[in-house]
Amino acid sequence: MSLKNVVIILAGTKHPGNIGSAARAMFNMGLSRLVLASPQCKINEESYRMARGGGRILDSAKKCRSVKSALRGIRLLVGTSGKSGGYRSSAHAPRTLVRRILAHAARQRVGILFGPEDTGLVDEDLQFCQLLMRIPTQHGAHSINLAQAVMIVSYELRLGSLKREPAFLPRLASLEQIEAMHAQLEKALLHIGFLQPQNAKHMMFALRRMLGRAALESSDVSMLRGMARQISWYAAAKKP
Amino acid sequence: MSLKNVVIILAGTKHPGNIGSAARAMFNMGLSRLVLASPQCKINEESYRMARGGGRILDSAKKCRSVKSALRGIRLLVGTSGKSGGYRSSAHAPRTLVRRILAHAARQRVGILFGPEDTGLVDEDLQFCQLLMRIPTQHGAHSINLAQAVMIVSYELRLGSLKREPAFLPRLASLEQIEAMHAQLEKALLHIGFLQPQNAKHMMFALRRMLGRAALESSDVSMLRGMARQISWYAAAKKP
Repeated sequence: MSLKNVVIILAGTKHPGNIGSAARAMFNMGLSRLVLASPQCKINEESYRMARGGGRILDSAKKCRSVKSALRGIRLLVGTSGKSGGYRSSAHAPRTLVRRILAHAARQRVGILFGPEDTGLVDEDLQFCQLLMRIPTQHGAHSINLAQAVMIVSYELRLGSLKREPAFLPRLASLEQIEAMHAQLEKALLHIGFLQPQNAKHMMFALRRMLGRAALESSDVSMLRGMARQISWYAAAKKP
Repeated sequence: MSLKNVVIILAGTKHPGNIGSAARAMFNMGLSRLVLASPQCKINEESYRMARGGGRILDSAKKCRSVKSALRGIRLLVGTSGKSGGYRSSAHAPRTLVRRILAHAARQRVGILFGPEDTGLVDEDLQFCQLLMRIPTQHGAHSINLAQAVMIVSYELRLGSLKREPAFLPRLASLEQIEAMHAQLEKALLHIGFLQPQNAKHMMFALRRMLGRAALESSDVSMLRGMARQISWYAAAKKP
């Protein structure tokens, strides 16, 4: 998978917890390569506590003295920056860049560079970047927490790497099941006088529209049929 | 702008720093309404330190004793859960749901509910949700940091709000109406023996999940309540 060629490079990070949080985000999204360039802190207990399942990413994180030395093997470097203007005037939104990044990552190493918590990437680091990425924010609120920025980028990469948008959708009931259910419901509701023969069609229509929106599964149909059966049974049993 | 009608509800949050980080993410993305439902910690100095520019969101955060009381005024409630299976089987990815959420938020209050850091949303809270959202993750890495989950959802909402397609959506029933309806349905179904006291909770849960997906309007609620009333009336009238 092309995510294997994506390297998250954190430059000059100051807080061990942020390194851990970034690793956790990477783990959630299926990234695994982390490089610390000129870190201003060490990976410590707090890092591991924040990383949760991403501990192995910390284990294998590479440390480099400088951003430049962290770039060995990287073919395409994408810098992230919340600021605009100057060298930063032509930046792309993550969603726009993801396709290009993944296309490159299919055959070569791509780095995504994040600056220190307080300043973000400085010009000196920016110079190495072929492309710039800016996460869209509210006006006047461009400073994003480092690990959250890593999360957004990782999340976009993950979605981009999936062929189609993920959906967690259940298998729906068949239309035959649905029709049999409606027939049974109608009978039961007539039985107890909720439906009158003259308004049955109209009310059943409303019920159908409503249940239609619920996208019923087989188990729902079973439940509703059970309910109808019980209503009818009860009505018959209680007949004087 | 429709983001004004989106409410982030954090249920049972345990760490003050996470509340602050969530507020910062909301601030970045232009959300402003934060509700703490049954919080297990207080907003403190650390919260404000983590919130950065989002301090005003903390100032105006509403605290509620329970999730239920936090729902006042909310018309559509979206639950977030990393887990799958059972009641959580039909969940949507944030990107898929965002259009629907924003279309509703153009005219009514929408809540997005996040569970506690360690457990996520429990079934008891999930029952109030009409829709479920799951952030796609790597297999076996579904547990996302609370504030990072808030960030992803806020980010998707922001992007979605930038280019919104028109939609024709009905005004939904209030959650108070929905709760009263469920209470009445439960009573009627117990009455005719479809529900037994020992399985009532489980079955009502299935019913809630199903009706939740139907996005009920007031007229639907009236119909279902009429049905429940008729069942109860019939059952009482036919009593020997």
